[in-house]
Amino acid sequence: MSYGLLKGKKGLIFGALNEKSIAWKVAESAVAEGAQIVLTNTPVSMRLGTIDELAKRLNTVVIPADATKVEDLENLVQKGMEHLGGKFDFVLHSIGMSPNVRKGRTYDDLDYNFLQQTLDISAISFHKVIQVCRKADAINEWGSVVALSYIAAQRTLYGYNDMADAKAMLESIARSFGYIYGREKKVRINTISQSPTQTTAGGGIMGFDNLVDFADRMSPLGNADAQDCADYVITLFSDLSRKVTMQNLFHDGGYSSMGMSFRTMKVYNEGLEYRDVKDDKTHPKA
Amino acid sequence: MSYGLLKGKKGLIFGALNEKSIAWKVAESAVAEGAQIVLTNTPVSMRLGTIDELAKRLNTVVIPADATKVEDLENLVQKGMEHLGGKFDFVLHSIGMSPNVRKGRTYDDLDYNFLQQTLDISAISFHKVIQVCRKADAINEWGSVVALSYIAAQRTLYGYNDMADAKAMLESIARSFGYIYGREKKVRINTISQSPTQTTAGGGIMGFDNLVDFADRMSPLGNADAQDCADYVITLFSDLSRKVTMQNLFHDGGYSSMGMSFRTMKVYNEGLEYRDVKDDKTHPKA
Amino acid sequence: MSYGLLKGKKGLIFGALNEKSIAWKVAESAVAEGAQIVLTNTPVSMRLGTIDELAKRLNTVVIPADATKVEDLENLVQKGMEHLGGKFDFVLHSIGMSPNVRKGRTYDDLDYNFLQQTLDISAISFHKVIQVCRKADAINEWGSVVALSYIAAQRTLYGYNDMADAKAMLESIARSFGYIYGREKKVRINTISQSPTQTTAGGGIMGFDNLVDFADRMSPLGNADAQDCADYVITLFSDLSRKVTMQNLFHDGGYSSMGMSFRTMKVYNEGLEYRDVKDDKTHPKA
Amino acid sequence: MSYGLLKGKKGLIFGALNEKSIAWKVAESAVAEGAQIVLTNTPVSMRLGTIDELAKRLNTVVIPADATKVEDLENLVQKGMEHLGGKFDFVLHSIGMSPNVRKGRTYDDLDYNFLQQTLDISAISFHKVIQVCRKADAINEWGSVVALSYIAAQRTLYGYNDMADAKAMLESIARSFGYIYGREKKVRINTISQSPTQTTAGGGIMGFDNLVDFADRMSPLGNADAQDCADYVITLFSDLSRKVTMQNLFHDGGYSSMGMSFRTMKVYNEGLEYRDVKDDKTHPKA
Repeated sequence: MSYGLLKGKKGLIFGALNEKSIAWKVAESAVAEGAQIVLTNTPVSMRLGTIDELAKRLNTVVIPADATKVEDLENLVQKGMEHLGGKFDFVLHSIGMSPNVRKGRTYDDLDYNFLQQTLDISAISFHKVIQVCRKADAINEWGSVVALSYIAAQRTLYGYNDMADAKAMLESIARSFGYIYGREKKVRINTISQSPTQTTAGGGIMGFDNLVDFADRMSPLGNADAQDCADYVITLFSDLSRKVTMQNLFHDGGYSSMGMSFRTMKVYNEGLEYRDVKDDKTHPKA
Repeated sequence: MSYGLLKGKKGLIFGALNEKSIAWKVAESAVAEGAQIVLTNTPVSMRLGTIDELAKRLNTVVIPADATKVEDLENLVQKGMEHLGGKFDFVLHSIGMSPNVRKGRTYDDLDYNFLQQTLDISAISFHKVIQVCRKADAINEWGSVVALSYIAAQRTLYGYNDMADAKAMLESIARSFGYIYGREKKVRINTISQSPTQTTAGGGIMGFDNLVDFADRMSPLGNADAQDCADYVITLFSDLSRKVTMQNLFHDGGYSSMGMSFRTMKVYNEGLEYRDVKDDKTHPKA
Repeated sequence: MSYGLLKGKKGLIFGALNEKSIAWKVAESAVAEGAQIVLTNTPVSMRLGTIDELAKRLNTVVIPADATKVEDLENLVQKGMEHLGGKFDFVLHSIGMSPNVRKGRTYDDLDYNFLQQTLDISAISFHKVIQVCRKADAINEWGSVVALSYIAAQRTLYGYNDMADAKAMLESIARSFGYIYGREKKVRINTISQSPTQTTAGGGIMGFDNLVDFADRMSPLGNADAQDCADYVITLFSDLSRKVTMQNLFHDGGYSSMGMSFRTMKVYNEGLEYRDVKDDKTHPKA
Repeated sequence: MSYGLLKGKKGLIFGALNEKSIAWKVAESAVAEGAQIVLTNTPVSMRLGTIDELAKRLNTVVIPADATKVEDLENLVQKGMEHLGGKFDFVLHSIGMSPNVRKGRTYDDLDYNFLQQTLDISAISFHKVIQVCRKADAINEWGSVVALSYIAAQRTLYGYNDMADAKAMLESIARSFGYIYGREKKVRINTISQSPTQTTAGGGIMGFDNLVDFADRMSPLGNADAQDCADYVITLFSDLSRKVTMQNLFHDGGYSSMGMSFRTMKVYNEGLEYRDVKDDKTHPKA
């Protein structure tokens, strides 16, 4: 279904790796809604994924850029505007990675160079994208910038590690820059706090499948998937949400407002029951 | 501009008094987006306002109902479904009134019968609307229910009085019922926390104009007005936000995430300066 | 251990039923810290519990009062001040009850008279206590008022029902009245959002034991118990927290800031595992 | 007044520059409450301020350390424990600085090397302090770690710049590490979000005095000052708050829960009035 919500709009989309990516779905939906877009990712991600295929299908280009490098972003913004023949109306930031997580460094044994990289890739890159756009005056008035976040910014999940701190900073950047870019150019900046999503990035986290199951049973509407997220992003890119800014918007089937659901408690109760029926010696209580 | 976002959908809209009302704008926008709607308000409000004119223009009916009365709501829901030829896909609750505010009873001198009425009209009516719909199975799966709230639910504003407590309860009802109606029928329930808006209801509050000025200067995008709000409500009624539920969504030009803007501080500074230049005896410091 | 933190202070404590009650522990601790107190509860609760024994041990009196009745509260406040020989320095509100929960009315089938009682007992009583004190000028400057709340005010828990809405309103009353009583008399008003606690009140909730287990495993420090809570309340009654007001303070071993702990996930995983090993026909998935 | 709340406890206090510093007041109060402490600051701050004088008066030592350097912290923790003859029971982190603010780089023109320093000094140093303590097993069970934060972590204030993002990250670190250190050693970690305070650090911010005036008039109890803050920190170091962890606690006279006070609005109204009476040409509206 398509409504023409983004007819005549131009956008820049970071972070499409493959067809599981939220950014991939956003790109498809934005074009379906009438937008012209430019895609970008790092050269490494371009090789690992299939973004070229997406660009072909959407009749656009991929402009390589490392979002931690200001020069790359400057080049991207210039080339992107040239390709589209004008300024951007929307930007999606879907970028995150923690070397500490990848290398198995736990949160009480962080490597501080890695932490620096986590922040640079997952949070500061968002500031850089916006600052470069701002300096180049690359976003039209009432433009919309969205970054993807996760509830770990508010609540600690074991194993999510320094990404939690990066997401907290990401959401803060949306507020801090939302004020300045809003008052001067009416550009709005928000983050979406999305359900845990079965993307290539999400899949790397320890015990992710069961966490997804937990969140799904906790959420009255079930988890939001990548396509659901793309739909929601479209509303934030559209002219219908022009006064929404500096917000972190939970898109999670209700998860963030749940304390305990019946369905979740049922599984938990069975876990307790199982412990009773099992030999406690071989399964000591945690 | 219209996109057909609500094509084929049916809705029930509470609280349109006159052309300044947010509910009025929502009704117009919903119909413009392809929905069929039914309007409702109390008999008193119908006389005081011009809802009949709106109904005529939108080619629909007004079914009178006092939202604090379950029997009225049962009748409304039945008649509404009959008129529309099917269940509702969306419901807007835009109802609030405090007899304590009206009668000048301050928060440290509340009349408890009045408080009861404040809660009944401004919060419990929301529960009644939903419960009556639920019992009549009157909302389609993936339907959307929205109520209008205000930041007083989180932060105290002098003069807003017991309406703050009512709004806090209203937002809680959205969560509590959002869980139950969501898990069983995929119906989502949210509140929108809107900028102070120059409606007939808003206008009654002491010092309202200057508060609106304050909020406007604090918000990087300025205050959201009634039409902005209607636009945003449409996105929440649409299929593009199906996984958003149990949320309180700030629609306020960024106000809720602001601590201090340059423009606001400038006026405040001039207020302090004025105090210095004026004769302090005739203008004692508060 | 005792520090003399409340030496010379006088207090009024609502809600001690028996030795499991948080209010009971607060009363004991307050006296141990040097305060003089007066106890109160409803006549029914006085019969059901053992508050007289507590009064005897603490060398004070129980003044019966139904906290939903202004006249009772007026009498209580007068008698309480007479007994103590002066105004109060602190007040504890530990009152909550839902007839809907008791009678098994689910949230989508609320009895609205019961809801009215839930609100009156669990939230509005807090306003009445403060308003009566305010009118009688019964609290010394820099006095401290505390009510007990629960995270259901922010996040929905199945079975907690309309108590969630009452707690949301309770916390709002703390803010609303905290402003007025603070600016005029420097009286501070806060709520404590306590871990699920094995009191007589808490014990009545469906599936409570396993919910307590869940919260305990989720909280890095484990659940806070009634004595922990009393300790914390003492800090809020003391002169060391004089600038804390209008806050809802989580006292829960970290629960409110947790998304997922290793220990909780372990039990949940075993629940999923158990489902796999069991005959699915006899244990259908929820 | 002193209660012996920290009798027998040992602590480590970062960030005392001079007698205006919150850390200075905390040090004095901690010793008055019976603790033994060790002071630390950077060599530069030691020269600029008068910490040696404080150490002399409190009969302790200053161990120089740059909190961004792990080696310095390792040395500090070892030396500190040696001096005190045992592990720490509490740690105060009162450190923050933004080169971007100092050098006048606005938020839409950040120098990214400076941003890196802002984060390293104001947020990551908190992680380093805790990680170094954790690896050296330098904090006793049920120990308490506190860092000082500001509401800019939640709401944007013009001029506060990248310190807002640093504070958001600081508060996230408290949660992330609070989980791990809590579950393993029962160590609790919290941040206090303090009123704007007239310290040497605070004084450097543009328009700070009027912001302090604004906050003071907004807060029903007025701003919390450095000594108030020290009092509150003592409660968090004491055994009476052992189940409070992973929290950001507002200590601000009620500011954080205020939308608008009568006193603040009065000044604002006079600012608007002044604009009307002045020649608008010489004072153009912002």
